[in-house]
Amino acid sequence: MPTGQLKKGLVLTKHFAERLLAAIEEKQTPMVVGLDPIYAQLPKQIREIAAGSKSGLPENAAALNEFCQVVIDIAAQHVPAVKLQMAYFELCGPGGLEAYHRVADYARQQGLVVIGDIKRADIGSTSEALASAYLDEVIIKDDQGEEKAVSVDAVTINPYFGSDGVRPFVDRALANGQGIFVVIRSSNPSAKEIQDIADAEGRRVFERLAMLCNDWANWPGCVGESGYSLVGAVVGATYPKEAELLRQMMPNSLFLVPGYGVQGATADDCAAAFHDDGWGALVTSSRGIIYAWTRPGYEQYGEEAWEEAVEAAVLAMKVDIAQALGRKVAASS
Amino acid sequence: MPTGQLKKGLVLTKHFAERLLAAIEEKQTPMVVGLDPIYAQLPKQIREIAAGSKSGLPENAAALNEFCQVVIDIAAQHVPAVKLQMAYFELCGPGGLEAYHRVADYARQQGLVVIGDIKRADIGSTSEALASAYLDEVIIKDDQGEEKAVSVDAVTINPYFGSDGVRPFVDRALANGQGIFVVIRSSNPSAKEIQDIADAEGRRVFERLAMLCNDWANWPGCVGESGYSLVGAVVGATYPKEAELLRQMMPNSLFLVPGYGVQGATADDCAAAFHDDGWGALVTSSRGIIYAWTRPGYEQYGEEAWEEAVEAAVLAMKVDIAQALGRKVAASS
Repeated sequence: MPTGQLKKGLVLTKHFAERLLAAIEEKQTPMVVGLDPIYAQLPKQIREIAAGSKSGLPENAAALNEFCQVVIDIAAQHVPAVKLQMAYFELCGPGGLEAYHRVADYARQQGLVVIGDIKRADIGSTSEALASAYLDEVIIKDDQGEEKAVSVDAVTINPYFGSDGVRPFVDRALANGQGIFVVIRSSNPSAKEIQDIADAEGRRVFERLAMLCNDWANWPGCVGESGYSLVGAVVGATYPKEAELLRQMMPNSLFLVPGYGVQGATADDCAAAFHDDGWGALVTSSRGIIYAWTRPGYEQYGEEAWEEAVEAAVLAMKVDIAQALGRKVAASS
Repeated sequence: MPTGQLKKGLVLTKHFAERLLAAIEEKQTPMVVGLDPIYAQLPKQIREIAAGSKSGLPENAAALNEFCQVVIDIAAQHVPAVKLQMAYFELCGPGGLEAYHRVADYARQQGLVVIGDIKRADIGSTSEALASAYLDEVIIKDDQGEEKAVSVDAVTINPYFGSDGVRPFVDRALANGQGIFVVIRSSNPSAKEIQDIADAEGRRVFERLAMLCNDWANWPGCVGESGYSLVGAVVGATYPKEAELLRQMMPNSLFLVPGYGVQGATADDCAAAFHDDGWGALVTSSRGIIYAWTRPGYEQYGEEAWEEAVEAAVLAMKVDIAQALGRKVAASS
């Protein structure tokens, strides 16, 4: 987001949207670094450190913890938020879930807004348990073996169960000053199979869901002083026309936008998810950033200099997104 | 299921459907005991045992582990399968996930088919990680502190991402001799909001999804000698008309049927999910069984005799389901 086009003077309250907008303003970018750590793909230096780790975690989980903390140190200098894809932590077994919480806590300590990408929901009674498990504080042991209470700022939600499955998350988020992002339009090729089924009036499932989600976003207490709700939406940039439509349909929701880079979306595709003022969305990239040293254009760094490759990829994406948003804002003014 | 109406002589192979059908035949019932353990609701005896537990688990997770093992000892005498609702294990933090795997392993040791109710899926690359995390073997410590490899027989899947999100689970299930159950129609009141959206021809989302899921069930290698596929479906008994329709649309899929009892469905409602021969589905009940001593009709047992209350509730439901299936089979012959 180009400097000079940001709204100043947002009141930093406990409302999730305000905290997030303030962080975007501070870092001058709506970019999110996605943490999708896969043990076998981590730099060998990280795996060596983990092998001798005294973190109390199993070796694979210790490696994820170490890797993510290094990436977070880089991210904290340049972007407002990180997103932890829980699946990759779960792949390390119970120790991986411990690492998830430690990484989330470390990121918050570094001043980052932390989004837990859990994509959960179930029937109401079960969603109550899930909401408590992933939005309330959890007691874990930190790297020094000390017990501490940790939590994240927001989680992602799967909508297939309807409002029963969403409400417990909204209730927790309201009570705790957190946010949720409901998957409206996913970024994958087969998203269309279910999400594009059209009703008799030609409205597709993701549009019908957007209408529902807009209701949820306006439940009492959800919209903050900024005009944005603590109920946001996941909207894939790989479908920019759909993103543009959804932007109109859900004016109060912050969008979490996957699909940039490795999944094929451009910065201009991502810009479709923003309001004309250049606000209202977060663009996330995972594999293109955290494994940058294996990607076209960054091979020269090599595994030895993987941290510099990550930083270079962050900065390049930051500029790319800023330019696209600059074009969007200019075109609409 | 009434004795004498079961097909005999099924070949017990590594195919999930055959293993499950053989277990149903052995126990003479398609009933599943659902494990939804909530620490605060457990009998005080269990919480006392957990307080002094040397299992290596945190106290809340140790209580879940202890409680579920007692319920499993009862279930193994009467039913073919148990379903673990992972949300309640996750509510205990990382130690809860350890307990989930220990409980699953204990149930398999007692000869039960074990379904992990995880309701997951994501874009393809992330579903790969989830499928590996929850279908491949996981190394855990058992109650004696020994490392061992454990896995479940099947997991539940959320369909909103389409086939990209399902295929990795099918691939793992094929390789490992396991099964999956895709949520087609959930049992909760707001299921209708998204699942009942009708297309221009009047086909609702859950019907369109059933058509897709029937394709998945017939992917190469998925259908076993019994004619049933390793790709099953979750179909709530709280919507019996929809269940009857889905039964016709997905002839090769085994249905996992929630909603009996506390959620309001009767045994006859559940019978709608079965073929006319009395086969093809599993009926699951959780809260009405595991907390029976707090339920109408079982209060006389009290907390002291909670185990007898659980067994009485299992036996009552077993008879109730058998009678309903008997009526269904009789009406169609």
